[in-house]
Amino acid sequence: MDSIVLSSGGLDSTVVIAIAKDLGFDIISLSFDYNQRHKFELTRASEVAKFFGVKKHIILKVPLEDIGGSALTDRSIDVPAGKLNREGIPATYVPARNIIFLSYAVSIAEANNISDIFIGVNAIDFSNYPDCTPMFIESFQKSVNLGTKIGVEDKGVVIHTPLIKLGKSQIIKRGLELGVDFGITTSCYNPDNIGRPCGVCDSCLIRLKGFKDAGFEDPLIYKINRLK
Amino acid sequence: MDSIVLSSGGLDSTVVIAIAKDLGFDIISLSFDYNQRHKFELTRASEVAKFFGVKKHIILKVPLEDIGGSALTDRSIDVPAGKLNREGIPATYVPARNIIFLSYAVSIAEANNISDIFIGVNAIDFSNYPDCTPMFIESFQKSVNLGTKIGVEDKGVVIHTPLIKLGKSQIIKRGLELGVDFGITTSCYNPDNIGRPCGVCDSCLIRLKGFKDAGFEDPLIYKINRLK
Repeated sequence: MDSIVLSSGGLDSTVVIAIAKDLGFDIISLSFDYNQRHKFELTRASEVAKFFGVKKHIILKVPLEDIGGSALTDRSIDVPAGKLNREGIPATYVPARNIIFLSYAVSIAEANNISDIFIGVNAIDFSNYPDCTPMFIESFQKSVNLGTKIGVEDKGVVIHTPLIKLGKSQIIKRGLELGVDFGITTSCYNPDNIGRPCGVCDSCLIRLKGFKDAGFEDPLIYKINRLK
Repeated sequence: MDSIVLSSGGLDSTVVIAIAKDLGFDIISLSFDYNQRHKFELTRASEVAKFFGVKKHIILKVPLEDIGGSALTDRSIDVPAGKLNREGIPATYVPARNIIFLSYAVSIAEANNISDIFIGVNAIDFSNYPDCTPMFIESFQKSVNLGTKIGVEDKGVVIHTPLIKLGKSQIIKRGLELGVDFGITTSCYNPDNIGRPCGVCDSCLIRLKGFKDAGFEDPLIYKINRLK
């Protein structure tokens, strides 16, 4: 059975592909080119797609750069660095990004009569993004089933969030159990021009701490790694 | 106060611009280029923006053609013609279109600290699209206020639907009261290469019947007009 998995080439979404595959789903992985600061993630998403032998890998070009309002879409806004953000929503939050991404996933699902969508959101070791919470996802699923043909006339869509209650170290352990090669993933918001992770942005810090807590070494080579 | 108005260059969204302006809002009109079959509507949306002297007119290029699944995005699917569709959801329905469009409107709203979004959906004389119903819009508004920074930390967004309970003839009358020039709008799903409306698609038939019921003449010149 086909499923659509949102894939950023990151740690979380790659584990989600492994989980969906393990559940017996065929994978259509979906990535977005929004000329993001960390566009290198698209290279990694393609490598991940190849690694898992997905049925199809779709990259949609979407105009988030025209909208701006985030350090990831507006190069004049700096990526916060140096310590884990634990209060408020940081400058790397992209306005309505998961709402837009999930909307496209729903559109593709509907156009292809697919009911299962997977997204790697989690709300424990995360950047406080409001579009990653269980409350939002549950509500959004209801909305799309009210506002689509597949929802109103047919079987509806289910948005699966297998990581929603897992901490980063648990996600890493689950991925390792399922044979994920984390060396072909990327998490950094601000990699250098060869894709090397900075080691100091929120996303790098969460990832590094996750590997440390899990008791494994992150196979990526960081520009700076204070946790080593 | 700024507002974002989804503008297709059509009858409904043009009346909505007039209504929002009448309420005292400054208008940022938002249109989408998805290489739609009726791409001529973008020419009209720009004319409408000029007519109302909007603060800004934004056209976002979005990849709905890559997704397909509709007569408006896939040229191999015919636009149904000849009689008003009254049962089921027709082939012109674009999977999750309003969900995607509203998501972008929310993103722009959030990036610019704007709370008011207007959309010209109505659920009386319409094409049975599920993404035009009050239930969907109410639910979607709740979802986006759970899943955005503006919703969680700030004032939230309101999705205004001033036409939701109006029939087509009432919408036309309201527009005429507010000085709308319907000659610069378009409604046709299948115009010819100079933008002339076919007169036989669902959208043309609903519009023509609306003008007839309202007791006014549609200023557009149709290829075929059986109601004349």
